[in-house]
Amino acid sequence: MDANNTVVSDGAVLTNEDGRIGAVGVISSLVGSHPGVPVRRLKNRLLMPGLVNTHAHSGLLRGTAEGLPVWEWLQQHIDPMHRVINAEEAELASRLCYAEALLSGTTTIVDMWRHMEGSARAAADLGIRAVLVPYVAEHPEHDYFETLDTNEALIERWHGGADGRIHVWVGLEHMFYATPAAWRRCAEISRRHRVGFHTHSNESRFDVDETLRRHGMRPIEALEEFGLLDAHHVMLAHCVWPSDKEMDILAARRIGVAHNPISNMKLASGAAPVEAMLARGIAVGLGTDGEKENNNLDMFEEMKTASLLAKFSRLDAAALDAWTVCRMATIGGARALGLDDTIGSIEVGKVADLVALRTDTPRMTPLLGGADGNLHHNLVHAVQGGDVDLTMVAGRIVVEGGRLLSGDLSETIARANRAVPQLFERRAQWLRTHGTVNALLA
Amino acid sequence: MDANNTVVSDGAVLTNEDGRIGAVGVISSLVGSHPGVPVRRLKNRLLMPGLVNTHAHSGLLRGTAEGLPVWEWLQQHIDPMHRVINAEEAELASRLCYAEALLSGTTTIVDMWRHMEGSARAAADLGIRAVLVPYVAEHPEHDYFETLDTNEALIERWHGGADGRIHVWVGLEHMFYATPAAWRRCAEISRRHRVGFHTHSNESRFDVDETLRRHGMRPIEALEEFGLLDAHHVMLAHCVWPSDKEMDILAARRIGVAHNPISNMKLASGAAPVEAMLARGIAVGLGTDGEKENNNLDMFEEMKTASLLAKFSRLDAAALDAWTVCRMATIGGARALGLDDTIGSIEVGKVADLVALRTDTPRMTPLLGGADGNLHHNLVHAVQGGDVDLTMVAGRIVVEGGRLLSGDLSETIARANRAVPQLFERRAQWLRTHGTVNALLA
Repeated sequence: MDANNTVVSDGAVLTNEDGRIGAVGVISSLVGSHPGVPVRRLKNRLLMPGLVNTHAHSGLLRGTAEGLPVWEWLQQHIDPMHRVINAEEAELASRLCYAEALLSGTTTIVDMWRHMEGSARAAADLGIRAVLVPYVAEHPEHDYFETLDTNEALIERWHGGADGRIHVWVGLEHMFYATPAAWRRCAEISRRHRVGFHTHSNESRFDVDETLRRHGMRPIEALEEFGLLDAHHVMLAHCVWPSDKEMDILAARRIGVAHNPISNMKLASGAAPVEAMLARGIAVGLGTDGEKENNNLDMFEEMKTASLLAKFSRLDAAALDAWTVCRMATIGGARALGLDDTIGSIEVGKVADLVALRTDTPRMTPLLGGADGNLHHNLVHAVQGGDVDLTMVAGRIVVEGGRLLSGDLSETIARANRAVPQLFERRAQWLRTHGTVNALLA
Repeated sequence: MDANNTVVSDGAVLTNEDGRIGAVGVISSLVGSHPGVPVRRLKNRLLMPGLVNTHAHSGLLRGTAEGLPVWEWLQQHIDPMHRVINAEEAELASRLCYAEALLSGTTTIVDMWRHMEGSARAAADLGIRAVLVPYVAEHPEHDYFETLDTNEALIERWHGGADGRIHVWVGLEHMFYATPAAWRRCAEISRRHRVGFHTHSNESRFDVDETLRRHGMRPIEALEEFGLLDAHHVMLAHCVWPSDKEMDILAARRIGVAHNPISNMKLASGAAPVEAMLARGIAVGLGTDGEKENNNLDMFEEMKTASLLAKFSRLDAAALDAWTVCRMATIGGARALGLDDTIGSIEVGKVADLVALRTDTPRMTPLLGGADGNLHHNLVHAVQGGDVDLTMVAGRIVVEGGRLLSGDLSETIARANRAVPQLFERRAQWLRTHGTVNALLA
């Protein structure tokens, strides 16, 4: 995933003690130039950059909030969950989701979630690189989310933590979830701490229509008008229905986009104009969205679906070629995050965030070099997260032989299966007492 | 997958020595009523019916025929491959694809392919249940495919073979690949041998437009007009653009449909009106299509994509609910094949074609019963083929611990990686000598 999509046969990567990549090349050459360095041989494996998941939500609702249009889905399932979830459950959700991510080759995850002290501890323990983005709301009708105060406290406590693996950004559920004063404060906190700002925008037609109704302009125009794009760095999730003018704003302001094709299909949101955005030079990464929208966190599935959705929605089998999709899932996501000097490719000086994929599987067969080279096609359309053998973040091996080394997965799963019925009981109680919520947007 | 989608907690299945299901129920009850029968306990596993893949092609072209519209794709890649592939390579392709299918939970596969004596041997050895459908062409421009003579010889030699696991049907690449005399003979052979007939139909707009141009009617109308639907049993692959009248024909004649959502998206064919067909009572199964169209043979991916495509193409998050998708992948496919008295559900008297899925994974967490039951949602949207722990066909365990027991997978993969460059070299030679082919349809 360097500028030339270089593929090295019999390749090797030297990882330094500081967790960075010291050299990349052919094994025989590297062994010669680094005598005495221990060599770990990976037979029948492909080393690739760790995947960058640019938009996810920790959660425990997998398969329990299904088949509803966004509005009812929010009212019946999501917002009542936000009312009642406690810090312990929220941390458990992050542990489960970060484990799932690491096991399927994701080394960097952007997580918009709640009670994120626990998420920070989970990321620190499990060894994933995480961009933590609290679900902030600053609005009388949404007073049960995180606040900009708790968001800023999390920045002060955790940004740069775990040897730099943990980033904390300013988060906002959606523009509709905050007052104009809070909008200004989002950008101000982001600039003062030199951290990114992340929110959902332009996800569905409703989002566009409602913004037009409220403000007389489209969502990304409104974000610009109200100062939200003046943050230090901005990444927007979805951008499914941007106008040409909105895409021009994204390009001019170097705003990253997190494209979530599975979520956009499952929630019937639409097909983002990925190729039009890429053609403007916009950094577009891929995201899985949450366990409740997807319903898993496998970036390989997301790569395949990104390709399929582009081809189907334009009825053009040549749309969104495989190398472009590979780049979106790695260096493109890194660019969208403003972290492409650190992650997203296997290059000297970057952190050693690596994945070893099994190549001794039917899904990787045949594997050809030369003019018929099909590695990129296999990666996008055939391989699955379960084909990940080894995951390394910052030089630390956290998954090996397809098993999580950095946490007790069985215990996490058992705890989740015990916790969810209790969470649902409290949610049902809340709904019996209060009725449904006036939710606005996902 | 019985009529009520029954889920049994602490369930057990009794398999008889003849490979059929003798009893289904709660383990404590079955142990009591069958004393002395050895019990194999599967901890943290879900037993489900084996998946029925209603449309696939063996092949070795994974990731090597990409990004082209159907017409050029056929000319440059597929038809020249058919010209030069030999029987040994074709058998190897079947071995690779049947292994992949079994490893991802498919117990019955419909395979349209070439030189299918080798496919029959591969199915017999590996233990999969297979419906073999030779790629027949009977047309001066397509004299390099199988013929109705070789198809009938395969029926006589192999139909009912391997203890009934192997079915041989009459196959036809496409109506355009045969003369009117051959159309009549397809139906005649099918009736005389009481075997099914399978062909591609109504896959793309081109297919519809070209049939209208040639015959003044739409594809399924033409199949009826020219006697092809008079076969003993008919299953059609794709049916992406059927008119109401064509769907009425499918329903009236009890014709099965193989829906291939990934292939239809990847080749930019379109979105089949699955719910409209189901509403008419048409038996719709799921198919992966081939390794060159998909590019893997994972029916769990196909289930997820079927759901996503239905929701996206109608912009309706409630489209094609999860139980319906589960049924399409099992009992629905069995109905489409006319084999629903034998396969497709775990019921007494049916063959013991079973899959044990891991439930101790993040993708299956949480797993809830009762009113919040999410098993069907997890199966459709979260689980992947790699979560298959055990596959049994006709009472024989062929995959255990995620590993193939019935064949040497490493050897098959190594042979495929050696064979493909040779196949491509012969294809390149053929193209240098002959130029591109006048191919008609996939």
